[in-house]
Amino acid sequence: MSEASAVRVIGLWPSPFVIRVLIALKLKGVEYEFVEEVVGRKSELLLRSNPVHKKIPVLLHNGKPISESLIIVQYIDEVWSAAAPAILPADPYTRAVQRFWAQYIDDKFPSAIRTLRGTDAGDKDQAAEQLSAALAALEGGLLKLGQGKHYFGEDSVGYLDIALVSHVGWLKAVEKMTGVALLDEAKVPNLVAWADRLCAHPAVVDAIPDADKFVEFSVMHGSFSKNYSPTKQDLHSLTKQDLTVVPTERSGPAA
Amino acid sequence: MSEASAVRVIGLWPSPFVIRVLIALKLKGVEYEFVEEVVGRKSELLLRSNPVHKKIPVLLHNGKPISESLIIVQYIDEVWSAAAPAILPADPYTRAVQRFWAQYIDDKFPSAIRTLRGTDAGDKDQAAEQLSAALAALEGGLLKLGQGKHYFGEDSVGYLDIALVSHVGWLKAVEKMTGVALLDEAKVPNLVAWADRLCAHPAVVDAIPDADKFVEFSVMHGSFSKNYSPTKQDLHSLTKQDLTVVPTERSGPAA
Repeated sequence: MSEASAVRVIGLWPSPFVIRVLIALKLKGVEYEFVEEVVGRKSELLLRSNPVHKKIPVLLHNGKPISESLIIVQYIDEVWSAAAPAILPADPYTRAVQRFWAQYIDDKFPSAIRTLRGTDAGDKDQAAEQLSAALAALEGGLLKLGQGKHYFGEDSVGYLDIALVSHVGWLKAVEKMTGVALLDEAKVPNLVAWADRLCAHPAVVDAIPDADKFVEFSVMHGSFSKNYSPTKQDLHSLTKQDLTVVPTERSGPAA
Repeated sequence: MSEASAVRVIGLWPSPFVIRVLIALKLKGVEYEFVEEVVGRKSELLLRSNPVHKKIPVLLHNGKPISESLIIVQYIDEVWSAAAPAILPADPYTRAVQRFWAQYIDDKFPSAIRTLRGTDAGDKDQAAEQLSAALAALEGGLLKLGQGKHYFGEDSVGYLDIALVSHVGWLKAVEKMTGVALLDEAKVPNLVAWADRLCAHPAVVDAIPDADKFVEFSVMHGSFSKNYSPTKQDLHSLTKQDLTVVPTERSGPAA
């Protein structure tokens, strides 16, 4: 870890909010250093960089800290504005629509996913229903905004794509953990095709590991559904790193 | 009400989120038509314009609806970018900092104010504590960002000023209703001076009526503190309009 790195990201790989920042930096071709937190502990650097919320991710740019994932994504777009592609669309109305849906995603997804993972208390059926309704709304939005384009209204990966795809890893993981169908081809076919396309995109593919990795993370940190029993197959690919994180406190994704 | 108006705002005057939109339009010198909702009812126009959240404010620009107050303020800044002053600062880092604090305000203020007003259940002492802590944090932010300037880091009224001043009417009203000191000169002197300065600003003065008007609104709509007994003095200035709103449902401010 070098204090001299111009761009550093403080985070944990399974956080959808951290994933957003990594995708935005990759899209812009910005080199960065990933400063990994230890699960269940908050580093002195994190506490100093985000004293208000004490949450990941934090982007450190020439030592100056920026917090809150969607604010960081906008910051990256504005600072590296010359680097194609633009993340926010140019048209103010399309920007407003994308910001609206990004906010909608943060209202609906994180709490419901945490409930399905078992990290938050709550009614799992209700959480699954909330997620299905939100995905159906976004399927409608995708059709309306996409108009035959590959992404949410644009020809390149943009703000709303980043806001939503960041949750796909956990969506697929909670499908495995609970048996609930969320990214269901029968209900949201366009969203399923969009997710497949986006997860294979060069700026996204490394930021979102397989669903199994998210399941393993849940298993390791005691925050998976009580209805889910991991099999040997689920656990066989645990890495050394997974086994050395400190499981003293559940540290879910943080905005 | 004219369908042909280029800019219309669907709202209710006591909503801090509506107040933000009115200040931003006034700052930019944009003429608009105010389409007032009836308390406790949601107009067909509102339901059609914001089918996802069904909440005020909605900005209709040439018939196209934009929802969520801070998104609307950014939209106004972007569409009328040639009209001085800029609402968002030019520097990406300062923009990120203002966005961070604006989000902080929306996390901390609305729910605590609703609890103190009596529109939401909850512990009033805890709500007052939360507000005092948030105001103290913002006092620190104001000193750091302001650096001798009149507003939050800028020489003209900007994004963070709008996000915060929109709550001043209700802050002063709940002080009267509950006896809790919030904008307290002993604790947050710079913020008190800032609020006085901002509330007298030509773009703000008409958008935020006296605290008494907010108290009257609470009285009329059955959502004031049980510990508060309005006096004749409090009630003497009720307008005819106040008396004809439909009090069948409490309709608090909505984002």
